[in-house]
Amino acid sequence: MTLNFGKRKNVYEIEEGKILQPKFDEKGLIPVITSEDSSGLILMHGYMNKEALSLSIETGLAHYWSRSRNLIWKKGESSGLYQKIVDMKIDDDQDCLWISVNVSGNGASCHVGYKSCFYRKIVFKKKESDINLEFIEKEKTFDPDVVYPNAPNPTKI
Amino acid sequence: MTLNFGKRKNVYEIEEGKILQPKFDEKGLIPVITSEDSSGLILMHGYMNKEALSLSIETGLAHYWSRSRNLIWKKGESSGLYQKIVDMKIDDDQDCLWISVNVSGNGASCHVGYKSCFYRKIVFKKKESDINLEFIEKEKTFDPDVVYPNAPNPTKI
Repeated sequence: MTLNFGKRKNVYEIEEGKILQPKFDEKGLIPVITSEDSSGLILMHGYMNKEALSLSIETGLAHYWSRSRNLIWKKGESSGLYQKIVDMKIDDDQDCLWISVNVSGNGASCHVGYKSCFYRKIVFKKKESDINLEFIEKEKTFDPDVVYPNAPNPTKI
Repeated sequence: MTLNFGKRKNVYEIEEGKILQPKFDEKGLIPVITSEDSSGLILMHGYMNKEALSLSIETGLAHYWSRSRNLIWKKGESSGLYQKIVDMKIDDDQDCLWISVNVSGNGASCHVGYKSCFYRKIVFKKKESDINLEFIEKEKTFDPDVVYPNAPNPTKI
């Protein structure tokens, strides 16, 4: 069931009120930051539509809108790595969500096999040509070919 | 100066490579998660375009693209609350950035006066009508009317 969220009427109510009035963009999406509850590590950045947000609230399990597959995506459905929502926050103008989760299984959330999608750091020195990425996760947590056999890669060029 | 970022050619290079190849959306923007370096607290969620990302890399101070004002926004320009970038990460498909920052002054990053833009938690009980927001920051860090005199509120309905 899709919940009826509050209608956005005035800035004061949006910023200082206690009514959930999320703003969905022109595609019907709101960005979501997902962090690991125990460590605070940011695991991923995704999107929810009204239905995914409703399902996340109702079930306590993170559901996203997959922009690459154009469907509601119950995180963990293929991999078993479900995200149990501990806490959900919304920002000042209510156009972004932050959820803290406990991930089941090996605790990873990245389809490439790393724990966090943010497994690379941008290293910049003096010259433009020196900008580089450095891996901060040295090893994958799982093998994506085993966990997602035959699944198309969601990364788009 | 706007930097020349790597051209996205194949998924393997994007996910497993060491070349920065950020994906800017159809509006030329990439979402950015900003956290406080000392605590890991997520402070805000914003957007950069190529120029803002270039300026952030070159100066070490967070620059964003303000969607409400349609301009490059050097964070702290009005308030003095600059964000010094300690660390910058990019996600698996390189369409989202995560920066860790030290905020100058009182350490706040939210235009409403709170430390973090995520100052409210979504509390949900059994019934739809029970969904509510609870303030997790009890007091503002600064008074926005003093810090941003005469500035239009960036929050849009």
